[in-house]
Order: sequence, then C-alpha cells, then structure tokens
Amino acid sequence: MTGYHEFSLNDAIDFARRHYGGFDGTTALAVEEIGDGNLNRVFRVTATDGRGVIVKQALPYIRCIGEGWPLTRHRAAREAQVLLRHGRLSPEGTLALLHHDDAQSALLLEDLSGWRVWRQALLVGDNTRGVAAALGRHLAKVLYGTSDFALPSADKRVEVARLANPELCATTDTVFFNDPYQDHERNRVPTGLEADAAELWSDRALKHKVAGLRLRFQCDAQALLHGDLHTGSVFVREGECRVFDAEFGFYGPMGFDVGLVVANLLLNFCGLPGWRQARAAEEARFARVEDIRALWKGFSEAFVAQAGGTQSPLLSEPGFVADFVQRVWQDTLGFAGTELIRRTIGVAHVADLDDIPDDNGREACQRRALWLGRRLIMEATTLSPLGLCSWLRRMAAEGE
Amino acid sequence: MTGYHEFSLNDAIDFARRHYGGFDGTTALAVEEIGDGNLNRVFRVTATDGRGVIVKQALPYIRCIGEGWPLTRHRAAREAQVLLRHGRLSPEGTLALLHHDDAQSALLLEDLSGWRVWRQALLVGDNTRGVAAALGRHLAKVLYGTSDFALPSADKRVEVARLANPELCATTDTVFFNDPYQDHERNRVPTGLEADAAELWSDRALKHKVAGLRLRFQCDAQALLHGDLHTGSVFVREGECRVFDAEFGFYGPMGFDVGLVVANLLLNFCGLPGWRQARAAEEARFARVEDIRALWKGFSEAFVAQAGGTQSPLLSEPGFVADFVQRVWQDTLGFAGTELIRRTIGVAHVADLDDIPDDNGREACQRRALWLGRRLIMEATTLSPLGLCSWLRRMAAEGE
Repeated sequence: MTGYHEFSLNDAIDFARRHYGGFDGTTALAVEEIGDGNLNRVFRVTATDGRGVIVKQALPYIRCIGEGWPLTRHRAAREAQVLLRHGRLSPEGTLALLHHDDAQSALLLEDLSGWRVWRQALLVGDNTRGVAAALGRHLAKVLYGTSDFALPSADKRVEVARLANPELCATTDTVFFNDPYQDHERNRVPTGLEADAAELWSDRALKHKVAGLRLRFQCDAQALLHGDLHTGSVFVREGECRVFDAEFGFYGPMGFDVGLVVANLLLNFCGLPGWRQARAAEEARFARVEDIRALWKGFSEAFVAQAGGTQSPLLSEPGFVADFVQRVWQDTLGFAGTELIRRTIGVAHVADLDDIPDDNGREACQRRALWLGRRLIMEATTLSPLGLCSWLRRMAAEGE
Repeated sequence: MTGYHEFSLNDAIDFARRHYGGFDGTTALAVEEIGDGNLNRVFRVTATDGRGVIVKQALPYIRCIGEGWPLTRHRAAREAQVLLRHGRLSPEGTLALLHHDDAQSALLLEDLSGWRVWRQALLVGDNTRGVAAALGRHLAKVLYGTSDFALPSADKRVEVARLANPELCATTDTVFFNDPYQDHERNRVPTGLEADAAELWSDRALKHKVAGLRLRFQCDAQALLHGDLHTGSVFVREGECRVFDAEFGFYGPMGFDVGLVVANLLLNFCGLPGWRQARAAEEARFARVEDIRALWKGFSEAFVAQAGGTQSPLLSEPGFVADFVQRVWQDTLGFAGTELIRRTIGVAHVADLDDIPDDNGREACQRRALWLGRRLIMEATTLSPLGLCSWLRRMAAEGE
C-alpha cells in the first residue's frame, strides 16, 4: 500500500488490523464512516466485543471553505507530532495516537465512543463540571512544557522550526485576521447583522488592536499550540477531557489556545437565551462563567507552580512569572474576541449560534456575540479575570 | 575537494580562482590570511593588478570563548543565506556574496580593502558622517522586507523555519541573557568593577526586565536579523556602509539589530573620555549622539514609508505602523542595555572600553557603560528618541 489513495471502508479495516495490537487476529471487524468528509475521512473500526479504534485520513482539500481550497496532506504528520508531544506532557488530556502512516496521511487513534464532544454536551445541557478546570491544567502542562521555561534555548528553536505549519497557519491567518475585518466574499454575515458588520469594518480603533493580535499570532513562538482549540475539539466525560484534531498545531502565543476555549464557552453563553427559557438560560450561563473561571484558575495556578522549577535563573523570578501569566490573560481576551467575531460573521460558524431555531432569537444572540468580541478586544489590557466574570454574571442575571 | 578540511593558503587561491570570474585565467594570484582564526579563517586573494576577493571558511569551534566550545560549521550556510536575502533587499548595505560552498563551509566575498571597519574608524576619530543614516535605511529595508508587513503569511513562516539558527542563537542567549546576570565563570568582570557587578546580580527589578527581553529574543520572529550587528560588523566609507559577518542571522525582534548598533555607538560614547582630552572627547561624543539620532531617523522614516504599501489591510493602518515602530524603539533601548552590560562584564568585550591605556580612566568608562546599560533597560518604555539624545548630550557636556 504505497502511494496515497483515499481509504475505502476495507482499507480502514486493514489499516486498523495491521497497526492495532488490541484486536485478536481472527476476530471479525466492523467499520463505519463517522466523519463528514469535509477535511478528513474518519472511520470507526470495531471488534465483535465492542472494542474499537479510530482511523483518520487527511484529504487534500477543504470542502467547507470553498470549492477547491487545497490543503496539504502534511497536516496529518503535524497532527501526529502535536498529539505525541502533548501526549507525553499531558497523557490524561490528549487523545492517544496509536500509529501514524505518513505515506497515507493516516492516523490510528484511540476510540472514545463513550465520551461526548464538549460543544454537543454544552448544547444539550449536560453537566460538564470539572471539564474546564481539567482542560486548564492540561493547557498549563503542554504550553509550559514546550516553552522557553522548560526547554533549553537550542532545543526549543529546533522544535519551533520542526513543527512549523505554514499552510494551515495561513488558513488561520486568513479566517481570523483578514476576512472578518473587511467586506470579503468568504464572510457569511447573518441576516439582520449586515449593518453591525459594516460598522465593525469601519472601526479603525478595533482594527488597530486586531493588527497587533495578528502580528502576535504570526511572530510570537511561545509554545506548541493545539491551534484550533474550540469546544468541538475536546472529548469530555465526568470531569475529564481529551483534546483531539491537532492538525493546526504550531508554535505560537499561549493566549491563542486559551482564548479559543474561552471564546467557545462564550459563544455558548451568547447563544443560550436562544435555546432555553429565561430561568434555565440564566442558570446555564452562570455555569459557563464558572467554566471560564475554573479554566483560568486551572491554567494559571498550574503554570505558576511549574515555573518555580525552570532552569533559567531569569525566568524563575516569581514576579516575572506572574507578569507573564498576566500577559497570557490579556492575549487570551484579545484572541477570544477575534474568535467570537469570526465565528459570527466569518466563513465558519458554530452550532451554538447558527442552529438556534427562532430567527429573531438567533439574530439577537449573534449580535450579542459580535458585540462581546469587540468589547474583549478593546478591553483586553484592562479587564481582569474577576472583572470579566462579574460582568458576564451581570449580563446573565439581566438576560442581556 | 570533497570532505571538509581547513583551507591552506593554496586552497584559498584555488577556491578563489575556480569561483571568481573576475580573474584573468593566467594571472598570478597572491594570498594572505587576514582573520585571527578564532572562529573562521579569512584570506584575501589578489591579482597582480590589485583586484581581490575574500575567502572565508568556518572552523568547527570558537577558540575565544573557551577551549573546546564547539560551533556548527553550518553557520557558513546561514551566513550565505542571510547575505543573499539581505543583499537582494539592500544591495548597497550588504557585503556581496560571490559564491558559497556548503561542503567546505566556505564563502567567496567581495573585497572591501579600501574601506574601514566602523569600530576602528570611530576609535581613531575618522569622520563617518552619513554612515549611521545609511545603516538605518539599510535596516529598514532588510527588516521590513523579511517581515509580515511584506511577506504573505505562509511564505514568512517557511522562511522562519528555513533560517532557524538554534546553535548560534543559543550562544547569544547564553552570553546576553544568562551569564552577565549571575556570578558566572565565563564572565570577565573588569578590575575595580567587582562591587558594581555584584550589585547588578542582586537587582531583581533589572532581572525582571531582562527576562522579558530574553523571551522576546527567543520567541518574537518579526524579521530576519543580522543577529550580531556591532560596529565591528560594518565596513564604512564616505557615508556608505556594508554589513558583513551574518552567521548569527535568524528571525527575531527588529529591536535586537537596531539596539546592538545603538549600544555599540554608546560603547564608543562611554569610552571616549578615556581616549581623548576633555574638549575633543566632548565633540566626538556629540557626534555619537548625532549618529544615534540619524540611525533612528533613517530607520523609522524608511520603515513607515514602506509600510504604506503593505498588502495587509490591518497592518497598513498608519496608526498601527507608528505604534509598531514605537515598540521597536522600546526593544531597541532594552536590547541596547543588555549589549552594554554584556560587553562590560560578560565574556566578550570591545576595544572601545578595554583598550583604554590608563587604568583609572578605563575603569571610569567601564562603570559608565554598565550604568548606562542598566538605565536603558529600566527606562526602555519611557525614554523617547529625543529624550535619549538630550540626556546623552547633557552627559557629554558635563563630562559624565
């Protein structure tokens, strides 16, 4: 099986059987395709006893963004490298990679069939208490462990170059920092928000801040990021989380990963009044604020605790570590703002807003997300974690 | 000639004859070794008509830092890549590369025998008016041209990875940001400055700022830097400059290159009272302040002028460009401060201070450089270009 070709169902079974030691050699294997085939083919291969594995194969294009937007299959190798690197630092927070075949751009991954995707769990109102704190601790481990706090200078620079991801980062650069700040044909501005979008496109103060965030994203190689850490990239179960879909991984600013989690919790927060009655929405929105509080607490406390052991005499100064974490918070707010904006008026939306059935309710929620995104960007350097949470609780209590 | 070996004089002649088209095939060639052999071998090969070329070959170690500090010969390839890249953007400011042999780690370079090294010109009091402004414009071209202002996102990321320089950057990291801020055996603390050094090593506020600069150096891939831009890396002649010795080149913060130039002008400024009578020293120090003013003016005006043409709608906002240049100025002051400190108490000193013949005079100049370095780091975010120049002129007028 040399030379790339798109896997058939039987190819997926073959791949699983050859590279997974957990199947009995003679057992019959069943297969189903579970991905939507926009970017990758994803198969679940299961034995008769119910145990299974996932086969994920990269396709050489992105169907959902536009006809013929090509995308390197090399992203499968990048995903494998990020899962391995993060998995060593935080096995409890990373989907396990069992095998990687570079020629076929195919990964063999652990099957988490009993788990839910976090976005879906939040949408249906499952209790996901403990997940945000666990994800915060996971982020502290993987971001600290791939940063200059943990790695010798030369080793870190070798990693930055080795894990460069120019093509997928260019996609991110476009959908985060280019299209949503101009009247671009790739944008999908919701009905009713045309005037809001036009007003945003003319906001020079906002674009000034976003330009700074764009350069941070492009230049600041602080740590090996997941690179696309929305709530659809996290499996959850009873206070546990496993991060997956790491093909956008690259060395970038820590606040980009943390900020995307915060933003996706806020997208849920913004959408809730469109999904539930006032009282239930308020309660669920309080829970999202608590998630954000717990995420940041989990991240910042675990990060500071690790930094005490850094080998660099300069970087181990407690005051410096506190300043650094404070700067990550500011980046978190800024990047969260860009995610809220691009998920509302850019090319790729989220179910938390777009699937709200009632037209008027949906429009109000989308406007809320756009407004919140702008506020976060403009107030990134002045808003504390406490301040943000108080403000969100007030919004929830007042049904705003 | 496959397999690396250290060039003999005859090897250098052979290399020049084979790769330089400017020699008549039959002409006799003379050769002399002009480097000191600490890091590289450098030969000048000349024809009977006086025309010549330079042959530079990398050695696999640094003799001057410590016995057996090995250093990759790969730096010759890095130097070739930086000279080519910078040479395309600013041929008038870059030493011309004529040929590069990777197996032999050897470069063929234009011969600038009629020119002087800037540090030597400053030490003997030559008029180098116009050089600083030309160097500022050169820096604006090469730094802008390799940055996100000029390059598409993916192309820039490919360049950052391709031009990674882990080993030499680790050397810089050590000699700039590690050793000088602790009592390290590699430091060379001048006689009489022991107490000053000890006091610096206990200054936590200073080390906090330096930690921030260290992370900027490590993480912030703004542009392709020269990486070691002291006044000994610049040939000068009547308002012209040609930058050479680019083996430390890498993608880093622009202020690191600009700051090293500023610092080396300031090292001369600090040393002048040890070299000349009061009146002559004052006049020469005013000239150094004028150099700094002209360097920054040349850089910032040329940078802003180019940024108007960037393809990125976000980055082309005039207010953002002004902010960005202001941030480069702050980095310039900070990195200049670290260069002043490491050139005074670190492993590698400069002639401007160390060669001052009188012991008391030398000690005073070294103390001045150490003090100035600390001030620049602590006041990097508050001191304007105008403020710095006024302050330096006052120092010069009062003989401080």
